[in-house]
Amino acid sequence: MPHTPSPLARPFPAMPPIAGVTPHVARAHYKSWDRCDLTFITLAPGTSVAGVTTQSKCPSPEVEWCRAALVLGQARALVVNAGNANAFTGQRGRAAVEAIAARAAGHLGCQPSDIFVASTGVIGVPLPIDKAEAGLDAAFAAAPCSWEDAANTIGTTDTFAKGAMTTAIVDGRTVTLVGIIKGSGMIAPDMATMLGFIFTDAAVEPVFLQAALAEANRASFACITVDSDTSTSDTVLAFATGAAGNAPLAASDDAGADAFRAALSDLCLQLAHLVVRDGEGASKFIEIAVTGAESDASARTIALSIANSPLVKTAIAGEDANWGRVVMAVGKAGEPAERDLLSIRFGDTQVAQGGLAVEGYDEAPVAGHLKGQDIEIGVDLGRGEGRATVWTCDLTHGYISINADYRS
Amino acid sequence: MPHTPSPLARPFPAMPPIAGVTPHVARAHYKSWDRCDLTFITLAPGTSVAGVTTQSKCPSPEVEWCRAALVLGQARALVVNAGNANAFTGQRGRAAVEAIAARAAGHLGCQPSDIFVASTGVIGVPLPIDKAEAGLDAAFAAAPCSWEDAANTIGTTDTFAKGAMTTAIVDGRTVTLVGIIKGSGMIAPDMATMLGFIFTDAAVEPVFLQAALAEANRASFACITVDSDTSTSDTVLAFATGAAGNAPLAASDDAGADAFRAALSDLCLQLAHLVVRDGEGASKFIEIAVTGAESDASARTIALSIANSPLVKTAIAGEDANWGRVVMAVGKAGEPAERDLLSIRFGDTQVAQGGLAVEGYDEAPVAGHLKGQDIEIGVDLGRGEGRATVWTCDLTHGYISINADYRS
Repeated sequence: MPHTPSPLARPFPAMPPIAGVTPHVARAHYKSWDRCDLTFITLAPGTSVAGVTTQSKCPSPEVEWCRAALVLGQARALVVNAGNANAFTGQRGRAAVEAIAARAAGHLGCQPSDIFVASTGVIGVPLPIDKAEAGLDAAFAAAPCSWEDAANTIGTTDTFAKGAMTTAIVDGRTVTLVGIIKGSGMIAPDMATMLGFIFTDAAVEPVFLQAALAEANRASFACITVDSDTSTSDTVLAFATGAAGNAPLAASDDAGADAFRAALSDLCLQLAHLVVRDGEGASKFIEIAVTGAESDASARTIALSIANSPLVKTAIAGEDANWGRVVMAVGKAGEPAERDLLSIRFGDTQVAQGGLAVEGYDEAPVAGHLKGQDIEIGVDLGRGEGRATVWTCDLTHGYISINADYRS
Repeated sequence: MPHTPSPLARPFPAMPPIAGVTPHVARAHYKSWDRCDLTFITLAPGTSVAGVTTQSKCPSPEVEWCRAALVLGQARALVVNAGNANAFTGQRGRAAVEAIAARAAGHLGCQPSDIFVASTGVIGVPLPIDKAEAGLDAAFAAAPCSWEDAANTIGTTDTFAKGAMTTAIVDGRTVTLVGIIKGSGMIAPDMATMLGFIFTDAAVEPVFLQAALAEANRASFACITVDSDTSTSDTVLAFATGAAGNAPLAASDDAGADAFRAALSDLCLQLAHLVVRDGEGASKFIEIAVTGAESDASARTIALSIANSPLVKTAIAGEDANWGRVVMAVGKAGEPAERDLLSIRFGDTQVAQGGLAVEGYDEAPVAGHLKGQDIEIGVDLGRGEGRATVWTCDLTHGYISINADYRS
């Protein structure tokens, strides 16, 4: 990890092994750095997989590969390359992904479509096939590594290793879910890419795993933003080995399905929050809760408009309770809103209500709240039952330094 | 003007008086500053008016007042308050606008609906009626001022006075159009507000003036962005006194209508560019031209996605030809785009084409172009005939300093 850890960093948690999942790392030397940069995680036969990928209209060949492989619902390995996103590299980029999948499948005696591939780093440079193949061979020969090693190896300009775990009771058995994630630290010309990988020993059918992951994604990864810029390579994959021996979960009314969905949602939210905590230059973790909108979708659009506003983000960086900028961001969202019904709070203090500032509100608790690292902004639109919560970080000189004070 | 002038500043041009238009300024003391902050521009009877206002769902009472008055199409005066936006101030804010219109109408012996009002500055503090009335009285008693004085007086944290002029031949007579504009410099807790005012001696019927202004707006003010944040108070008004004595323009096939529309569009574009040149912290003026899109609207969405991307803006600040970030911004725009048809240029140099980097392109002219103040990014989508051009500035430490390094 190249940078000083984010002031919002969290220590890497104790994370148990998952039966059927074996992580390895190696040095593929994608860049001239002194660290492992290739992660090869092998999976027991019969492992189910589900995934969500970037909405970008210019996705990387890795994303296209994963989308095609997800249709089959089975996985034997995950390969992650750090230092080169392999995006916008045309036929040569596609060839690199195919070569990696073929090489890994050769080691494991499976089909290339059982291999999932993700890459992160510079855009526009085809991934060197010879380095990838040599790295894969070295990783396959290496002893298994820890989750923390794997989390460090998938990172690029992340400032701390990010992982989370949780458990659920399914069919009378305790199943464990762990996840590692990278994203949102970046130095030019690297592209921020959010890659998240979740592993569980639960037995889960692919279709149900996909539905549960999609549901968890909507309230976690889809609700975070650092700078409104969507990567070409964003990918979250969930792998379920079935080693826990529960009756496989196949539908939402199966016993334990609710517990598993809740655990997966909790894990995704933990991981998503860690990405925000490593947002470039972040000094504050900001939760924006919008209520009283006409619909949940409308609430989310408004919440993201606030979260992506450079003026709101710089105000929070400046510890300034500038609710006028929140009004501005509500107004520009294009969703139904009525000035005279709007109310806004910072932390627990209502600062504006019914179309104007709350007269003589106590500024001391607001100032105290803003001096902290965890900031809450609440907006009630006074129109309906729609609600959404999103998370972001502030916009500081650190962001500019990371992304502009650099010449390629 | 409180700040060091923007490095992209332009000198104030020589601007002639417009027959029927008389600008005055005064000190209303809205803030504890040593400058004029109230502008009162009187207009000859029979002056036509047209306007475009913010798309914000939380507009200021001034914007609501102007929208109602625009329906009548006639104007006798414009009042601009600087230092207080009077937005999100409920009934007290509306009362302040009504009081200003009534006071100005009293001086001129006209209807309050003939008075147009705009305010810019802090949000959420009702405009003090007593200061506004005293300021109006003082301005009415004062000698007429120059355009440059008026341009300085409508500014808040602008770093230079912004004005432009042009002429057109209509009905055998030379008509003159001048404009002043403020916007996009800001210090917390002030809200950036773009206010633009255009005056011409041409005789133009209100309905045609509105159509011409709307058309000019679409290719100028609607195509600039500094930080993607839309103000509650954005307003552009155009006033036509008719003193030039041409046969009034009423329809687009009238003789001289094309010349007038072209002149108005040219003036709006000049004024819009000046706002970008005073973007907070700007060190580069960036033109983004998108071609080959499925429609002009699609091209504009993609161009604005690039222009609003913090990663693209910081790359330009860093003089870094990081076309991968341009790809990213095209991909996230949500519009039809195909990676393998995309080509990108910086200045005159093609850097990516057909889905990958142009092999061995000459980096010297690209580096030279990026070191300049005027940057051009060209993106061709290779799909259709849609095109759009937008303008923005880079994102620098200056932006953070202006907007975060401040406590209210």
